[in-house]
Amino acid sequence: MPYGYTGKILHVDLSSATFREEETGEIFRRRFWGGWGFILYYLLREMDPIADPLGPENILVFATGPITGAPISGSGRHAIGAKSPLTGGFGASEAGGFWGAELKRAGFDAIVIRGKAPSPVYLWIHNGQAEIRDASHLWGKTTAEVQELITQELGDKSIRIAQIGPAGENLVRYACVTHDLRHFAGRCGLGAVMGSKNLRAIAVKGEGKVEIANPDRLAAIRQWLSENDEALLAGFRHTGTAGIVPYLNAVGGLPTRNFTLGHFDKAEEISGQKMAETILIDRGSCYACVVRCKRVVEVKEGPYPVDPVYGGPEYETIGALGSSCGISDLRAIARANQLCAAYGLDTISAGVTIAFAMECGEKGLLKSEEVNLRFGDPDTLLKLLEMIAFRRGLGDLLAEGVKRAAEKLGPEARNLAMEVKGQEVPMHEPRFKQALGLGYALSPTGADHNHNVHDDGYVKETRSSFRKARALGILEPLPRNDLGPAKVRLFFYELLWQIGYELWGICRFLPYDKHQVQEILQAVTGWDVSTWEMMKAGQRIYTMARLFNIKAGFSPADDRLPERFFEPFPEGPLAGEAIDREAFQKALELFYGMAGWDPKTGEPYLHTLAELDILSLL
Amino acid sequence: MPYGYTGKILHVDLSSATFREEETGEIFRRRFWGGWGFILYYLLREMDPIADPLGPENILVFATGPITGAPISGSGRHAIGAKSPLTGGFGASEAGGFWGAELKRAGFDAIVIRGKAPSPVYLWIHNGQAEIRDASHLWGKTTAEVQELITQELGDKSIRIAQIGPAGENLVRYACVTHDLRHFAGRCGLGAVMGSKNLRAIAVKGEGKVEIANPDRLAAIRQWLSENDEALLAGFRHTGTAGIVPYLNAVGGLPTRNFTLGHFDKAEEISGQKMAETILIDRGSCYACVVRCKRVVEVKEGPYPVDPVYGGPEYETIGALGSSCGISDLRAIARANQLCAAYGLDTISAGVTIAFAMECGEKGLLKSEEVNLRFGDPDTLLKLLEMIAFRRGLGDLLAEGVKRAAEKLGPEARNLAMEVKGQEVPMHEPRFKQALGLGYALSPTGADHNHNVHDDGYVKETRSSFRKARALGILEPLPRNDLGPAKVRLFFYELLWQIGYELWGICRFLPYDKHQVQEILQAVTGWDVSTWEMMKAGQRIYTMARLFNIKAGFSPADDRLPERFFEPFPEGPLAGEAIDREAFQKALELFYGMAGWDPKTGEPYLHTLAELDILSLL
Repeated sequence: MPYGYTGKILHVDLSSATFREEETGEIFRRRFWGGWGFILYYLLREMDPIADPLGPENILVFATGPITGAPISGSGRHAIGAKSPLTGGFGASEAGGFWGAELKRAGFDAIVIRGKAPSPVYLWIHNGQAEIRDASHLWGKTTAEVQELITQELGDKSIRIAQIGPAGENLVRYACVTHDLRHFAGRCGLGAVMGSKNLRAIAVKGEGKVEIANPDRLAAIRQWLSENDEALLAGFRHTGTAGIVPYLNAVGGLPTRNFTLGHFDKAEEISGQKMAETILIDRGSCYACVVRCKRVVEVKEGPYPVDPVYGGPEYETIGALGSSCGISDLRAIARANQLCAAYGLDTISAGVTIAFAMECGEKGLLKSEEVNLRFGDPDTLLKLLEMIAFRRGLGDLLAEGVKRAAEKLGPEARNLAMEVKGQEVPMHEPRFKQALGLGYALSPTGADHNHNVHDDGYVKETRSSFRKARALGILEPLPRNDLGPAKVRLFFYELLWQIGYELWGICRFLPYDKHQVQEILQAVTGWDVSTWEMMKAGQRIYTMARLFNIKAGFSPADDRLPERFFEPFPEGPLAGEAIDREAFQKALELFYGMAGWDPKTGEPYLHTLAELDILSLL
Repeated sequence: MPYGYTGKILHVDLSSATFREEETGEIFRRRFWGGWGFILYYLLREMDPIADPLGPENILVFATGPITGAPISGSGRHAIGAKSPLTGGFGASEAGGFWGAELKRAGFDAIVIRGKAPSPVYLWIHNGQAEIRDASHLWGKTTAEVQELITQELGDKSIRIAQIGPAGENLVRYACVTHDLRHFAGRCGLGAVMGSKNLRAIAVKGEGKVEIANPDRLAAIRQWLSENDEALLAGFRHTGTAGIVPYLNAVGGLPTRNFTLGHFDKAEEISGQKMAETILIDRGSCYACVVRCKRVVEVKEGPYPVDPVYGGPEYETIGALGSSCGISDLRAIARANQLCAAYGLDTISAGVTIAFAMECGEKGLLKSEEVNLRFGDPDTLLKLLEMIAFRRGLGDLLAEGVKRAAEKLGPEARNLAMEVKGQEVPMHEPRFKQALGLGYALSPTGADHNHNVHDDGYVKETRSSFRKARALGILEPLPRNDLGPAKVRLFFYELLWQIGYELWGICRFLPYDKHQVQEILQAVTGWDVSTWEMMKAGQRIYTMARLFNIKAGFSPADDRLPERFFEPFPEGPLAGEAIDREAFQKALELFYGMAGWDPKTGEPYLHTLAELDILSLL
């Protein structure tokens, strides 16, 4: 019974409670690869792009990549996608953990979910079998409660569970999907899509084996990593993603008080270093991974108790719920992280929306009798998270996301809404990293820091991003605060590479260079994949996402940034710095050209689709 | 004294008899690589594109690639380039042999030649030194005589000599450059450019070492080749390039009687197989190469004596001087090959021009009292070659190339001139391989079979071209007689790869797959080159060539094919088959889009130049 990367895709129709298996071959898998590629294939082929994202017509896809589940560090990733209720366009989010690998062991590379169950259900997928089970008794419960109940019900502690929380049930537009309580597909409101389908969870378990074409080649990379473990991973392991806080704060790139500032005077208190010294009790991992960048924190006493069952906050969470809200109490942030995890809220969108509400409160644009709308108040943060998850009072407005909330509050508030295409901006400052701003504006999923480029990695020959970019023919370092043609080229090339991380099922945090990722992909698939093929796959899928968005009604006017990023910082390390509007616009147009898109409509040209082998998806 | 790939470029001004050395670093070498890249860099930066190609303003470049001279089979290649007197645009041609490797051992990666010597000269480059020497006594002599005289004069039998023959001296527009009498840079009339500069020869000799970053990795590929020698090379070694004659004839793709037919009833008599059985006395090689595809033939008796000093005819020669002229006497063809070698004529252009004259003669469009202008007459062929080389009688007209000759003979003759952009069509039939026709039309150097794609290699999964193309993401075989979007994509991708062979200094006849060529390039340079970087280098240099041609006055109207290819074959295996004019035009437009060129002007867009990192060359 060897399951694994067999090319099987499970189709589930929740309306009719029926299943169907689809077999896929090399041509399908090598054209679309996995993750975003699979998701977009079904969205483009089988969905009306203007359908209501919270209606039964939306198609929700859970998709692994070829590397997911392979015995190599970084293989614990999968993607979830659908039309996003937050952006109204292509929505996708990736998670680490163990769920994706388990799905493969259970016999499927992906699950495609259509329709809506008449009442709450969950899916149980085990060793090639799929079952729809009642979830009425789970509705309204926290994620930890549901994890426990399903585990008991199925009588197997080793099952892996993807689920939404009450926020997803209540169609909060930035509800997330969590996996085994600690691994989040946070962005784009895919939890609300699950909720709209009355689908609370997907439990998976498999005894199958993920087939690897060339295990020896994987072993060699494992060996390389273990030999370089201390040099490459120790720091990251020690401080986790939030270890970057002091650096970003020092350079002026730490989003603070709803992006009004780029530095936070209490940054040290919320850093990964501080966390390691205080509330950290363990370091978690994903499938097969030696890095252990995940945090496990615990707070037993005081006003903000934290249960380690939910792991601990990542950098994005620290920024969004911390500095962005002007909050410096690490325990309160960890508590807020727990509420997001228990209720199933994306911490970035939640934090940015609350920071917006706080700024509106300070500016008199929004009033509340329930909470104190001021930066820096942890109790406001915690109370608002509850109110949002259950759509109570002001929480009902904020549950719509910062864009819709601002539209209700009027034009002045509109300028304070830090979002692109309706998705809240993550914790990286484009006035510090200017190409990243281009990436925010262009991202098909709205502001996103993942499929993107972080300019500060390319400013010196010694930076590892630059060193790895050499393989693509990037020969010279480039300043961070620049949007000239060479920067747009760098952005375009790295973007195509980065999209790969949404396809292959491998984590971008691993220290592999481009040749090593290629080597892993070759070893796993047995195909003689080149970097050209990989980059073109990235461009193909990025273009498919663009195509979906165009069909969903987007235009070049949606490739924009919040006004704030064009306004100079009033103080701090980057005082006076802003994105130059004209340079930004020129860079966008240059990018359109490079990407093969019509600058007037934003649409990919026919020759672009032909070159990317996706004319059939038009 | 380690010379080799040191990045040194020798600049020679023949007008002032001065030399200058230029040092280049990684950024220059990794952006332009060698061969075409170096040539076009100087043409674009330092030459007026509308200057007379036969005037002193033309810049003539001899350029190796990074792999040239490395201890690995296939490394014996270098390129020569200038503005072409045949096309009026970018001209380049590559040769095998030993000269390129010797130039590197003499301390230079390239030679850039400007101006015009007041009287005939040759260059002597040895161990980092360069010298201009009188060549008055060599003028008018055959290449074999000059080879002997220079060797004696310099007192070293191991020197390597690139030279022109009388045809180059007489500015025959398709005069070639020959190396050690047997290795030809045949195309684009670069021999005439040498002649216009009063430069008869360049002799080189070096005791330096070509530095290799990682010799062990090269050794591993050498080992692989030696283990697969029999399986991969024996057939090719046995019959040489002309071993393809029976196949092409059987499928109807053997250019016959000036392309009026695709099969030749006496094809067997001119095949590589027949050659091996009759006049072949040895098999020659290039630097470090185990393939031995080069022919050495000898005919001692009869009307067509052949001296083995000039090697022997390749497939292109067999086609152009043989079937294309309706000539089936292998000895006569070998004799004609010798005349071309001795006088320095490109065999393809010479054969196609003579075939044109023969057809014109048969159709009454051209009369001659000196020769019998009929297909199939070997004596006409041999006599015309002499007349062309020395521009005697009708030869003076034919020395201008088939385009200019046809223009003088009137519109009916114009339709019989098998050329693109003024360069005569090589021996591959685009009605059989339709994407190859696209390549003919688009090639910046005029009709060329090298940087091109041969459709018949992709029609089945078992074909080696298709198997190697998989690495680029070409997933499905494609029919040969098709110009749809998938074919244009295949053409575009393979073209970018093929341009690499004009850059790296490695031979396309070696059985290396794409990963192995990448491996060789990495091993030689020590750079972590990806296939992406290689393909983008191909696109960069192809775009530079386009840019030069646009500046020289070319427009999309020049991306055309001879009318004959749109007319169906009257008989034979491909009876009734022709290129569909509308499909061809659509394919061209699709290609323009993929290449990032403005379909109206044919010019690369600014964003294309930016993406390819060559905005500075505009």
